[in-house]
Amino acid sequence: MPAALKTIQMANNKDAIRKILDRAQADARKALTAPEARGICEAYGIAIPKEGVAKSAEEAGRLAVEIGFPVVIKIVSPQILHKTEAGCVIVGVMSAEQATRGYATIIGNARHYDAHAEILGVQVQQMLAGGQEVIIGAVTDPAFGKLVAFGLGGILVEVLKDITFRLAPASEEDAVSMLDGIAAAEILRGVRGGKPVDRTALASMIERVSSLVADFPEISEMDLNPVFASEHGATAADVRIVLDFNPVAARYRPSQELIVAQMNRIMKPDAVAVIGASPENGKIGNSVMKNLINGGYQGAVYPIHPSADVILGKKAYKSVKDVPGEIDVAVFAIPAKFVAKALIEVGEKKIAGAVLIPSGFAETGNVAGQTELVEIGRKYGVRLMGPNIYGFYYTPKNLCATFCTAYDVKGKAALSSQSGGIGMAIIGFSRSAKMGVSAIVGLGNKCDIDEDDLLTFFEQDDNTQIIAMHCEDLKDGRAFAEVAKRVSKKKPVVVLKAGRTSMGARAASSHTGALAGNDKIYEDVFKQSGVIRARSLRDLLEFARGIPVLPTPKGNNVIIITGAGGSGVLLSDACVDNGLALMAMPPDLDTAFRKFIPPFGAAGNPVDITGGEPPTTYQNTVRLGLEDPRIHALVLGYWHTIITPPMVFARLMVEVIMEMRARGIDKPIVASLAGDVEVEEAAEYLYQHGIPAYAYSTEIPVAVLGAKYRWARGAGFIPAV
Amino acid sequence: MPAALKTIQMANNKDAIRKILDRAQADARKALTAPEARGICEAYGIAIPKEGVAKSAEEAGRLAVEIGFPVVIKIVSPQILHKTEAGCVIVGVMSAEQATRGYATIIGNARHYDAHAEILGVQVQQMLAGGQEVIIGAVTDPAFGKLVAFGLGGILVEVLKDITFRLAPASEEDAVSMLDGIAAAEILRGVRGGKPVDRTALASMIERVSSLVADFPEISEMDLNPVFASEHGATAADVRIVLDFNPVAARYRPSQELIVAQMNRIMKPDAVAVIGASPENGKIGNSVMKNLINGGYQGAVYPIHPSADVILGKKAYKSVKDVPGEIDVAVFAIPAKFVAKALIEVGEKKIAGAVLIPSGFAETGNVAGQTELVEIGRKYGVRLMGPNIYGFYYTPKNLCATFCTAYDVKGKAALSSQSGGIGMAIIGFSRSAKMGVSAIVGLGNKCDIDEDDLLTFFEQDDNTQIIAMHCEDLKDGRAFAEVAKRVSKKKPVVVLKAGRTSMGARAASSHTGALAGNDKIYEDVFKQSGVIRARSLRDLLEFARGIPVLPTPKGNNVIIITGAGGSGVLLSDACVDNGLALMAMPPDLDTAFRKFIPPFGAAGNPVDITGGEPPTTYQNTVRLGLEDPRIHALVLGYWHTIITPPMVFARLMVEVIMEMRARGIDKPIVASLAGDVEVEEAAEYLYQHGIPAYAYSTEIPVAVLGAKYRWARGAGFIPAV
Repeated sequence: MPAALKTIQMANNKDAIRKILDRAQADARKALTAPEARGICEAYGIAIPKEGVAKSAEEAGRLAVEIGFPVVIKIVSPQILHKTEAGCVIVGVMSAEQATRGYATIIGNARHYDAHAEILGVQVQQMLAGGQEVIIGAVTDPAFGKLVAFGLGGILVEVLKDITFRLAPASEEDAVSMLDGIAAAEILRGVRGGKPVDRTALASMIERVSSLVADFPEISEMDLNPVFASEHGATAADVRIVLDFNPVAARYRPSQELIVAQMNRIMKPDAVAVIGASPENGKIGNSVMKNLINGGYQGAVYPIHPSADVILGKKAYKSVKDVPGEIDVAVFAIPAKFVAKALIEVGEKKIAGAVLIPSGFAETGNVAGQTELVEIGRKYGVRLMGPNIYGFYYTPKNLCATFCTAYDVKGKAALSSQSGGIGMAIIGFSRSAKMGVSAIVGLGNKCDIDEDDLLTFFEQDDNTQIIAMHCEDLKDGRAFAEVAKRVSKKKPVVVLKAGRTSMGARAASSHTGALAGNDKIYEDVFKQSGVIRARSLRDLLEFARGIPVLPTPKGNNVIIITGAGGSGVLLSDACVDNGLALMAMPPDLDTAFRKFIPPFGAAGNPVDITGGEPPTTYQNTVRLGLEDPRIHALVLGYWHTIITPPMVFARLMVEVIMEMRARGIDKPIVASLAGDVEVEEAAEYLYQHGIPAYAYSTEIPVAVLGAKYRWARGAGFIPAV
Repeated sequence: MPAALKTIQMANNKDAIRKILDRAQADARKALTAPEARGICEAYGIAIPKEGVAKSAEEAGRLAVEIGFPVVIKIVSPQILHKTEAGCVIVGVMSAEQATRGYATIIGNARHYDAHAEILGVQVQQMLAGGQEVIIGAVTDPAFGKLVAFGLGGILVEVLKDITFRLAPASEEDAVSMLDGIAAAEILRGVRGGKPVDRTALASMIERVSSLVADFPEISEMDLNPVFASEHGATAADVRIVLDFNPVAARYRPSQELIVAQMNRIMKPDAVAVIGASPENGKIGNSVMKNLINGGYQGAVYPIHPSADVILGKKAYKSVKDVPGEIDVAVFAIPAKFVAKALIEVGEKKIAGAVLIPSGFAETGNVAGQTELVEIGRKYGVRLMGPNIYGFYYTPKNLCATFCTAYDVKGKAALSSQSGGIGMAIIGFSRSAKMGVSAIVGLGNKCDIDEDDLLTFFEQDDNTQIIAMHCEDLKDGRAFAEVAKRVSKKKPVVVLKAGRTSMGARAASSHTGALAGNDKIYEDVFKQSGVIRARSLRDLLEFARGIPVLPTPKGNNVIIITGAGGSGVLLSDACVDNGLALMAMPPDLDTAFRKFIPPFGAAGNPVDITGGEPPTTYQNTVRLGLEDPRIHALVLGYWHTIITPPMVFARLMVEVIMEMRARGIDKPIVASLAGDVEVEEAAEYLYQHGIPAYAYSTEIPVAVLGAKYRWARGAGFIPAV
């Protein structure tokens, strides 16, 4: 059909749905009737059983042919409720003749059953059976809004919670990915002689449901259960639609341009005010001042204090409004009850952002106090960070706008945390592991600035190559997902979502008032948005450290080269765990590797060069692995021996890499070092030279490589495996 | 029935089975017919559908009543094969009268269908339907022998591989645990209005199947599929039995007494010979000599060398047979081809054990060479460690019988590894983490001494409190499980099984010729044997280090006390991940905690004392946690602040613990430290004083506590949760 016509029909279809919904709203109903739900499905091309009402035996036969066999035929009569008991249902009708005869039988039985019954005709309906029962549904999540859901039918799948979600509307690609997104995906491809289902039809139904709920937000829940999926199509046997005409108000979101402009002023300020600056050791306002000054910040610092003239050598002011020049950001170090008043002054002074260190707001039940701040911020266009935070660091400006310890190891990783404790763990780990950072940001109660604002800033911040975030909830999961989907194509985004479990969610709720939500939704939306999920704090930190060190892989073929066969086995397990594809070794490459390794070594993959080998064996095999264009990444397993001591190995590996880089070859390499304590120094040396390396662990280096691969696949650099 | 009578009946039943099996063997059959399989089930009390053949209408009615309704009745006639087509099957018979009438109908229809058919009667059979379809089976595994299996029926469960195994024969407790051992266990308890199944009947059927295959090893496979389990019992609708009359020969296993005697000589020798001792730096035989001497071993060391008189100051001999005194263990440092000859001399000298460092045996395809060694060892009663190993360490004797670096940090953890590389990782980690060890043992190809020999030794070794093992396979999984089940009741046994995945298994096979096997079987048997499974190398090492430090918990109630709310959330997630039970806080205890924490802190569990608190708040809350007898373990979340710096916190915690220990209170405590790098020193201090503590990680401390709990539950100190 021509596009114009299609648009008109879509509009008409929408009109039909609008009418149904308006009627329900007028009736103050929360659910649609079965015919209404059918009408909505028809309007959006969601296949439901074909049916019609026959007024004559001939019509019954004709209808049955039109619908296709088998059909079920049954009486339509307001008086006959127990149709089966009355002998007024015939299932499995397989021909026009059977339908014609069936019509007569049913009419006869109906008259016999109740001579006075009003008979409106005989319903002829497509009979669904066989194929695979699946469920397609839609829900409204407080954080993510409309989501489409897919799973197999049946109680077992419910018990095993094998269901997958995507943000609605879902793209065709999203919909197809859902079919593979359940643990029992194999069933849909046909197992034990079963026929594969029509994947196009199923994916199309998912897409339509997702568009429907996105187009009509008042549809709060929808359930197609069961949907019969066969090799010839998919049909929803039963449809349930729940309505909610009072949707939650959309969260305020400034334009991307405005976010960028304000976040740049906040993160890279030329002038900072400290409200509650104090000359007294141990006070938060004193620590903030010291961190700003000792951290090396070169912009203007204005202490704000009711009476002091000078604090730590800087001229103090009674109010931000008394400061002569422009101020970009104000750090609050005053008790909760004084914040609102000072914030109004910040607004009047046209300061871009307020860093609200004080606690005592929503996390302690003071929701009204927090709402008041949000309203002031909105009124004056001030963006609010916090409250209930440690502040933030932005190392390219030597800016430590925090009461915690100063931090100055510059690098390309930006981190954020919803919790102060986690922020301190980030600082300690970063310093200890020599992980340079561009920024560390505390988000706390996230009354305004949240992860999507940070992503929007870091996206355009040349000092940041990777963004790693700890969060207990997402206030606006949908906005986060939209921004993350865009940003993750350019820079890896890693998220540690705390409150995964029921107990964790309960703790999160009493910690930052976080609504931890259904973890499976987070899991699926993160994947849909290209976000790399960290399962633990250590993973978050190691990924932040390791991912930027590794070049982007150009393909999926991973090779393990190991001196320790035992490490090779564990590294292989770790590759499988992390979704890495161990390359099937081509015979010529196998032969090439064998030239370098002793006859009792094992080629194949892992390439086991054995433990007694001199440094040249590592050198030759790793060089071959880097030179051969069919290999895309290397996992090294080093075994500490007298013949090849740890630092000899490490220096040699760095030499090989440098040589290859000079020739334009740069592939991701990670290393697992087994040996005595000298391997720790070797690991650090390797890390500082571009090879994430770990002593006494086979799993962490592979997890880091796996995270890099997840990103490269999500961002479309290499295909999924 | 009286016990004596029961025994006679069992014997009779076994005779019946023996007859069936003998007949099959005489016929050279590999499978049983359906009636034979039924006969075997009947003999072992495995419920199959009740049935009988009626010769008259009255008998049909009587039989139907005896069997219970519904029944299905059908003709018994060699000539009538298509019974349904002939109208000779009636399903769903619900009364004696229907059965009586049905008899007549079937006989009539049969005569009508084929007047000449020989009619033997009418079969009346219990009709199975409804309830839950499950599968009970038995398999023969190369490592574990007979195993009984249980899972739900249906293709979906097969796809999801939701099946569980136990060694056969399975105890009643094992059988019951299988019902809860599948992911979909909830189904059996009745969901969505479904009735719960008869768990006793199901468990009993599992037990009987497991006894049957244990009693008759020639039954190599058995499949009851489906078994219909309802609230009233369980009946196997179909039975398949496969036979194998050529079982593999049982592995040679010395008596426990003999193992202990020989292993004590090997591990704690008074005299060691080094075959292939060398004065030349860089040679393995030189490294072994140096490690023995420099490691501080006080026993006699005899270098064996074809020509030297003295090596490293010790008188050398041409053969062990020339040594005047007794020798307990001989360390081999000669090429593979010379090993057999020297081993014969070792046998003739009545040396208890040979430590076979050389490689070049089964792992390179030289299976014959390895078999030759095994035969020599068996002939002379010499136990063989290896070949293809680094040797072993036993620190209480200052014994470093290895060519690797010497190691001397004494402690209570015994470790073993199948691979040399992993052995070196153990040494490096141990030294770095100050983890004292009693022994480190290389097992390599495990041609003789394997994990169950080591377990048997360490069980009675007072210098060992925990045993941690890395393995790529178990040569005799059954022996391991039997010994582990006994030993793990006294000392924790931790195992890292490499080759978990398909790729890992392939690598293991080319590394040590290991047959990695079905990982689910390893998983289930480890659990059945009380073994704590480590999922990664780091876990193995951290568990070995942390478990002996912790006292055994006296109950399941865990409390989190945290200064960082964010850590509290992650620690809660980690508790759920590790099967720990966060105690529901009783109101009086909640009140007691609240007395110590600021009003905006959160009591409940986690107890969130908030970050700004002085040391006394940690002190008071931790003391309360230790004093209250309802609390059994503490997880601490520390947040680095100026008010409570890391070492202040650490010293205070150790003080509190010491004070409590003096009062007889000793509970497991672990800690997660979030802060700047000073927390690393604090973590080490805490660890050295009995609190496993980790910087920048919420997951590792809880994993260590979880491992301790798994052991305490497996060993029966506390109930499962």
